[in-house]
Amino acid sequence: MNGLMMQQPLLVASLLTHAARHHGDQEIVSRRVEGDLHRYRFVDLATRSRRMANALAGLGIRAGDRVATLAWNGYRHVELNFAVSGSGAVLHTINPRLHLDHIAYIVDHADDQAIFFDLTFLPIMEALQARLTTQRLFVAMCDSDRMPAATSIGALLCYEDLIDANDDDYTWPSMDENTASSLCYTSGTTGNPKGVLYSHRSTVLHSYAGALPDAFNCSARDTLLPVVPMFHVNAWGLPFIACMVGAKLVLPGPALDGRSLYELIEAEQVTVSAGVPTIWQGLLSHVSGQAKAFSSMQRTVIGGAPCPTSMAAQFQKVHGVDVLHAWGMTELSPLGTVCSFKPHQLSLADDARYAIQAKQGRAVFGIDMKIVDPDGKALPWDGEAVGDLMVRGPWVASAYFGAPTGQPLRDGWFPTGDMAKIDSDGFMQITDRSKDVIKSGGEWISSIDIENVACLHPCVASAACIGVRHPKWDERPLLLITKTPGSALEKEELLSFFEGKLAKWWKPDDVVFLDSLPLGATGKVLKNTLREQFGDHYAASSTTKPG
Amino acid sequence: MNGLMMQQPLLVASLLTHAARHHGDQEIVSRRVEGDLHRYRFVDLATRSRRMANALAGLGIRAGDRVATLAWNGYRHVELNFAVSGSGAVLHTINPRLHLDHIAYIVDHADDQAIFFDLTFLPIMEALQARLTTQRLFVAMCDSDRMPAATSIGALLCYEDLIDANDDDYTWPSMDENTASSLCYTSGTTGNPKGVLYSHRSTVLHSYAGALPDAFNCSARDTLLPVVPMFHVNAWGLPFIACMVGAKLVLPGPALDGRSLYELIEAEQVTVSAGVPTIWQGLLSHVSGQAKAFSSMQRTVIGGAPCPTSMAAQFQKVHGVDVLHAWGMTELSPLGTVCSFKPHQLSLADDARYAIQAKQGRAVFGIDMKIVDPDGKALPWDGEAVGDLMVRGPWVASAYFGAPTGQPLRDGWFPTGDMAKIDSDGFMQITDRSKDVIKSGGEWISSIDIENVACLHPCVASAACIGVRHPKWDERPLLLITKTPGSALEKEELLSFFEGKLAKWWKPDDVVFLDSLPLGATGKVLKNTLREQFGDHYAASSTTKPG
Repeated sequence: MNGLMMQQPLLVASLLTHAARHHGDQEIVSRRVEGDLHRYRFVDLATRSRRMANALAGLGIRAGDRVATLAWNGYRHVELNFAVSGSGAVLHTINPRLHLDHIAYIVDHADDQAIFFDLTFLPIMEALQARLTTQRLFVAMCDSDRMPAATSIGALLCYEDLIDANDDDYTWPSMDENTASSLCYTSGTTGNPKGVLYSHRSTVLHSYAGALPDAFNCSARDTLLPVVPMFHVNAWGLPFIACMVGAKLVLPGPALDGRSLYELIEAEQVTVSAGVPTIWQGLLSHVSGQAKAFSSMQRTVIGGAPCPTSMAAQFQKVHGVDVLHAWGMTELSPLGTVCSFKPHQLSLADDARYAIQAKQGRAVFGIDMKIVDPDGKALPWDGEAVGDLMVRGPWVASAYFGAPTGQPLRDGWFPTGDMAKIDSDGFMQITDRSKDVIKSGGEWISSIDIENVACLHPCVASAACIGVRHPKWDERPLLLITKTPGSALEKEELLSFFEGKLAKWWKPDDVVFLDSLPLGATGKVLKNTLREQFGDHYAASSTTKPG
Repeated sequence: MNGLMMQQPLLVASLLTHAARHHGDQEIVSRRVEGDLHRYRFVDLATRSRRMANALAGLGIRAGDRVATLAWNGYRHVELNFAVSGSGAVLHTINPRLHLDHIAYIVDHADDQAIFFDLTFLPIMEALQARLTTQRLFVAMCDSDRMPAATSIGALLCYEDLIDANDDDYTWPSMDENTASSLCYTSGTTGNPKGVLYSHRSTVLHSYAGALPDAFNCSARDTLLPVVPMFHVNAWGLPFIACMVGAKLVLPGPALDGRSLYELIEAEQVTVSAGVPTIWQGLLSHVSGQAKAFSSMQRTVIGGAPCPTSMAAQFQKVHGVDVLHAWGMTELSPLGTVCSFKPHQLSLADDARYAIQAKQGRAVFGIDMKIVDPDGKALPWDGEAVGDLMVRGPWVASAYFGAPTGQPLRDGWFPTGDMAKIDSDGFMQITDRSKDVIKSGGEWISSIDIENVACLHPCVASAACIGVRHPKWDERPLLLITKTPGSALEKEELLSFFEGKLAKWWKPDDVVFLDSLPLGATGKVLKNTLREQFGDHYAASSTTKPG
């Protein structure tokens, strides 16, 4: 017997109509490619999104068609979110930092009918068009007087011309909530990128979960700054959450350096920000030495890579900004866990709290997780057992787009490719990517644990630890670091810094000092590159296993 | 084209499994009928709910069957929530304050297969069984040594015997999320009660919305006290929300007087409470004169009836407890709106803030609302226009249970029966129940506005205003009040108190002092009864319309 409740589908466009009706005057502030700040209100976002929906129809975009973007976080990008998904088409956000080969691959694979781009990416677009075998529409996201005078792209369209040429008389269609709404390709470090196809239902449910007090904790009194780009899993859903709760939305455009972010945070009185550790490193370097540098920021969500304890301590102890360590994946829309304290943890001493915050936290309601051994048997939540992290839930991918074979699920669970442990309070901690774990003498060593210790040393700016082939122990850890500017640090000093902080045999056998670590398109260290380069570092070595 | 996300249904049992896995040690504290405090953990709730699910199967309860409760807020009642709904049956919470005629009617109408009850209600149950024409199971929610020695109920079962006789090896079944999960009858002041049939989907979505920062704002660090009974729309969803976020849950049982509630709030360090104004009046009377009487309570949700401004002021100004004025209905699961401030309102003076808090607030995401004129035409959100309030959303009733004719929707919207205005910030204010609005000389007078002014007078304990037949103006307002203990108040003083506070012609023509106001089963004033009693109060009168 079914309940007798209304059958109202969960639709992306309803986030926009809610925001426009209930928070019409709330602001959206965008740093533009031109450098200036643009500001308007949710009601303007709604009006222009409807105009763009009419424009898309006029361009022949139909339900189910894919429409791509190569764009920074900005108001036009948000408009496309609603215009494309809301009208039943699929917004495909492309990471412009991918190699052109990958961009060309995914545009073909997704069969994008149109590509909208910020002028920053005109050179990429010109190179792309030259390689495409199929005709596609190109739209420059700018005013008509900013259109490039000369370009190799034939029939380049102008975003603002499309807005001007269409009226806002448009009714968002109702549809099945399982209809595809957006598409994001994983930036696989091996093989071709794989497409994750979100639905209206998954997007709305993810927004509810993400706004909860123990997740990003967003209200109409918040000002949200998604530094994480919209081409990284829809900026972790924050533009949608802003609409759901009526929060002010601040979009940083291309200016992601520490100074620009700091000025934006202060000028717009941001209360909640979200981004990857490398971005926050730039911000903290800019404000280093200033106590209470942030006059409004209450918390920052750190994800995409493990948050070093030193970073959490600096935000909280020096600047009074709470850190929310989070974990997710493209295949999880992306939110899986957030490290929010339980009541009995609130009164712990700083160090004990930082130890908890080194974990990626608790599953938000909607996400089930478990850790399993190689045979698929569930492991205990004792804070000790390490296994493959598996997840399931209504915003978790069940398959990849256009990939008829090699589908991911195992017994209905999505294997994350992460190794993790979970403590008795349900706090999950990633110990490694499965492919990054170091297998030494039949035992496992967590590269992340070693990196965390290294980052505690004041002279270490960034660190990466990899497993390197070893004649006796199969693999041994090699630590690669960059130093903070002007600091002097010798290998022996850094290695002795590990004493007492980890098991003796986890201590790296050697340290290599680099000017910079190789970063991928999403800002993560490319450990594959490091393994290729340093894979024979211990080849001639015969060091005995310590400890 | 559909998205490629997992098809995980939204199920009530998943709230319980989430709580047990992630917050297994979190407490549930219950005041029992016996008077003592019972405490256990979410993991115990889960274990015993599975035992009860096995017991229900053993009693022959099948998917879709209705299982009724007459019970206070307590752990066994919460267990039944999950055991019944989680196993695919329908939990039917009956308001024990209803007249026996109504209880007998709805038990027959719902065709309840079993009735679980607290011992408080044994006399009602005995009277009920004597009237029933169909055999039904009766289960007393107590230990075996508390079972009544003599009762007219044949084959009375004991709750704890059922728990003891069954093991906890039970797997919650998966099912369509639109499956019915619970049933609640409206306490119609006219006609027979009507059944609202909730679904798993509506319950889970309502929990997400209710936990949001701008709604009840619940986290794992909160302690929730639902004073509002579970037989009033599942205690406004708070037991489900507690499971979703891992909050400590405190259940007051039958002890709803001011002293008992206050002692419970302090002993268990409650942070969030929820109830109707009459309950809070008792609590405030108990603590009157004590500044900062509450050492832990941060906010209280007030709904079910309009919250008088004087009450909001006392909570906030004297006791430092934030008030969240909310509005909902049985047909809305029940949450519709919550009065959470927007950022620009935070800096207003106290009086301006109280004026905002007199409104029932903004729609949570998921609820659409509009006000319409008698022809169904939408009225502006200008804070002036008053119309019929219409709502829609995934947790709004589309039909009544077992009522093949006379279904409620108009063009897909549910007519609430409330008159309301909505301001440009989206804050809705109920001006009256449609049937309570006073029609005077072709114009409308809000009975609630008049009651609010009356309650501002320190000698007024409670107030009700009704429209009374009038030879010249069709209707004129008559004010009925109870005085605070020991206070002296004359009619003229109270009427002159209205000067300058409302339009002159809204001032009541007369005041009647009563010892008490007639209250219905949900604690609301029975204005129908007052209209019957005082309907001819102005019959002989020929007062001219003031102003």
